[in-house]
Amino acid sequence: MCKGDDHNCPDFELHRKQLLDDLASERRAFLKSAAVAAGGFAAVAGGTFIPASVRAQTLAAASGSAKYHYLAATAETVHWGYFSKLLKPQLEVDSGDYVTIETLTHHANDDAERMVKGDPGAESVYLWTKDKKGVNRRGAGPVDGKLLGRGAGEGFGVHICTGPVYVRGAEPGDILEVRIMDVKPRPSANPKYPGKSFGSNAAAWWGFHYKELITDPKPREVITIYEIDATGQRNWAKAVYNFRWTPQTDPFGVVHKTIDYPGVPVDHNTINANENVLKNIRIPIRPHFGTMGLAPKEADYVDSIPPSYTGGNIDNWRIGKGSIMYYPVSVPGALLSVGDPHASQGDSELCGTAIECSLNGTFQLILHKKAALSGTSLAELSYPMLETQDEWLVHGFSYPNYLAELGDKAQSTIYEKSSIDLALKDAFRKMRHFLMTTKGLTEDEAISLMSIAVDFGVTQVVDGNWGIHAIIKKSIFPEVA
Amino acid sequence: MCKGDDHNCPDFELHRKQLLDDLASERRAFLKSAAVAAGGFAAVAGGTFIPASVRAQTLAAASGSAKYHYLAATAETVHWGYFSKLLKPQLEVDSGDYVTIETLTHHANDDAERMVKGDPGAESVYLWTKDKKGVNRRGAGPVDGKLLGRGAGEGFGVHICTGPVYVRGAEPGDILEVRIMDVKPRPSANPKYPGKSFGSNAAAWWGFHYKELITDPKPREVITIYEIDATGQRNWAKAVYNFRWTPQTDPFGVVHKTIDYPGVPVDHNTINANENVLKNIRIPIRPHFGTMGLAPKEADYVDSIPPSYTGGNIDNWRIGKGSIMYYPVSVPGALLSVGDPHASQGDSELCGTAIECSLNGTFQLILHKKAALSGTSLAELSYPMLETQDEWLVHGFSYPNYLAELGDKAQSTIYEKSSIDLALKDAFRKMRHFLMTTKGLTEDEAISLMSIAVDFGVTQVVDGNWGIHAIIKKSIFPEVA
Repeated sequence: MCKGDDHNCPDFELHRKQLLDDLASERRAFLKSAAVAAGGFAAVAGGTFIPASVRAQTLAAASGSAKYHYLAATAETVHWGYFSKLLKPQLEVDSGDYVTIETLTHHANDDAERMVKGDPGAESVYLWTKDKKGVNRRGAGPVDGKLLGRGAGEGFGVHICTGPVYVRGAEPGDILEVRIMDVKPRPSANPKYPGKSFGSNAAAWWGFHYKELITDPKPREVITIYEIDATGQRNWAKAVYNFRWTPQTDPFGVVHKTIDYPGVPVDHNTINANENVLKNIRIPIRPHFGTMGLAPKEADYVDSIPPSYTGGNIDNWRIGKGSIMYYPVSVPGALLSVGDPHASQGDSELCGTAIECSLNGTFQLILHKKAALSGTSLAELSYPMLETQDEWLVHGFSYPNYLAELGDKAQSTIYEKSSIDLALKDAFRKMRHFLMTTKGLTEDEAISLMSIAVDFGVTQVVDGNWGIHAIIKKSIFPEVA
Repeated sequence: MCKGDDHNCPDFELHRKQLLDDLASERRAFLKSAAVAAGGFAAVAGGTFIPASVRAQTLAAASGSAKYHYLAATAETVHWGYFSKLLKPQLEVDSGDYVTIETLTHHANDDAERMVKGDPGAESVYLWTKDKKGVNRRGAGPVDGKLLGRGAGEGFGVHICTGPVYVRGAEPGDILEVRIMDVKPRPSANPKYPGKSFGSNAAAWWGFHYKELITDPKPREVITIYEIDATGQRNWAKAVYNFRWTPQTDPFGVVHKTIDYPGVPVDHNTINANENVLKNIRIPIRPHFGTMGLAPKEADYVDSIPPSYTGGNIDNWRIGKGSIMYYPVSVPGALLSVGDPHASQGDSELCGTAIECSLNGTFQLILHKKAALSGTSLAELSYPMLETQDEWLVHGFSYPNYLAELGDKAQSTIYEKSSIDLALKDAFRKMRHFLMTTKGLTEDEAISLMSIAVDFGVTQVVDGNWGIHAIIKKSIFPEVA
């Protein structure tokens, strides 16, 4: 008997429907079980990374074919500041497989004592002496660092990304579904801080606020270090201290007057730490991956900062435990990478960063072949889409595929064309597409529904290709349980 | 003994603190009781408009001085399409008084049989024969209607506003607090539709979508009529039918090829009603007042469409039952008007309107004198602010006070300068002010907090002066219960 995949089977239509029903039922079971366990880290404390209930519900697992993989973050398994279709995969998986991926924040060196020291993976990535860097290239720019004199890659891109993961059988036109099974903070490896994780928030020159400061000195960049409970007992973060950025000399001797190159170690003898900040303020935890996506075909080395149709640095705090991302596959094997872990972020990521905090994520990767998309909610999907327990979200950008749209110099031009006015237009078009294609509405129906029941929010205004997301509640369509 | 209002009292500071504590405690009690009863209309069915629990908690009520007023919507008590400091008050109240205000949607004539017929108030407002209009002026434009030939007021402004309400003692610099005690749908007066209310959604030429249509005919305007359960048993709306706008000849003989003047009666013999729309789709109810605010001092007649520092057409769906709005007073008496009632709306109000549906609101009006604002959360408040049970919201606009900023032609210029990029900048500045002034944070603290815990959303992109709101959760400040 075919499994809904053999067009020559006399009962193909029946089997195909059965397969789609099974997949949908299984997907809903995942979202439901994840939602029960959701709510910061607290609910995941003591849990296994793959809930047994979910494992049992998964088709691949049920058929006995799903495997589990672990990808640690080390100098060898990360690429820093860029996506690239040329990268050697760190892991090959089959559709249905599970993988735990360690991700490191690229702001760990703002306080190396709390976020790097004693952690072999982080130490290997952050290694930087006068003779050697653990990861030399940090960005999509020139490797010789002679363009701006900042360093290899020049910081055209900043995120430490773990991967890529090669999904067997994935081809351009397919859709990769990424289920986020679990998210855990990476504990500080320094014995001085047992049970604690830390993150950094940089109010930096690329922030929306930077030219708008009202108090002196102007301008300035400010780092605030936050503490997160690594044991999962507390669902809020608190500030530990802040400091204003001072010129930092990296081990190669380059002086960084501003935060212009990722991973520069901050010499704490040069800064004034102010511990009296944000007293009694509790930041709700929203652990998520700021950057997750596939390698695009359009360029060999792609700056990790602007998000695009294959995802990447979307910076939507809803991309956390219990949610599902869908990405259009652009190159063979899909080449999934994950990075830019955040403990929390607000819609807009206004000052340039979130609480940048290393996290481990456990994912299930499911490949949807192009030929099988017709009639499903993934038909004609040409943009990154998010599904949560209660909502569907589409992501609009100033330019939906800036690499293809903005010509040879797209990777610099995009920063000159940032606009949420444009991103709203794109989000509108994508939500219209979702409602017309997935939900089968007419354009008139879709447009009325968007005005009375879809919420548009500011995803981020700091990533060059600015973002607006559109949210529609699933309960609007009660026929879908 | 002074009540915290006599600076000559030897115990003034003590009494003042006691007063502020009492007010804060009472405000929290209102928000809490309202939240318990929240959730569409369902929870308010059978309720009195002033819950006894709230009445008992109110200082003015407790002192026996609060009065209750009722302001019906009739041709005499509404002003259509504009705010004006020159308007004669329809009601005078003291701080602490309650008032129920009927509001009529300006889209009722899209389906007069369902939304006007048999309703004396609506019929008096919508009266329009070849000789007479119940309300002649509809907008801030010229009354002779010779500029564009559309009609009196020319439709520079569209909302039917009930009021104004004069608050005794209110002066420029004060803050008017408006507590929304209850919101109820206005039932259809047509005996054919017992227990039902109706609303209209117009996908109109001023919508964000209008120049972006992908199906024919292009362009087009579409009206969708929605049904709401007037008894409050059902917390969702459903579509009844839609139709495409056809040229409509008003009783004075003016042909309206597009929706260019408010209240034009739609001749249903000229349209094709399509009843097969949005089948099985449930629109969550979010009853609220799209337009509520005070008369500004800057001009005699002010178009009701662009929101500004005194509120007006903010179009935030969170301005509903159980929430509190705070408005800077611009003219003596404050002159509060309410209109543009909505059964539901999404963030952005994308196609130009919400579910435009007549509602009755019950409000308590509390005046905060300028001299008493220091040290309270209303200190230096120069913009409209919303408080809900769990959140504080500030409202950013493309231009925070466009009447003062854009010169003599501000009321037309504003439509050429619509931008959510600008509105985000304003929302950022206002949230920073809130955090620094009300919460006492430094600028560095405020900016970090905004990036990791404040959500910025698209309020509306259809009102000339476009809007972005910023939301911060109260739970972030646990010291305030």
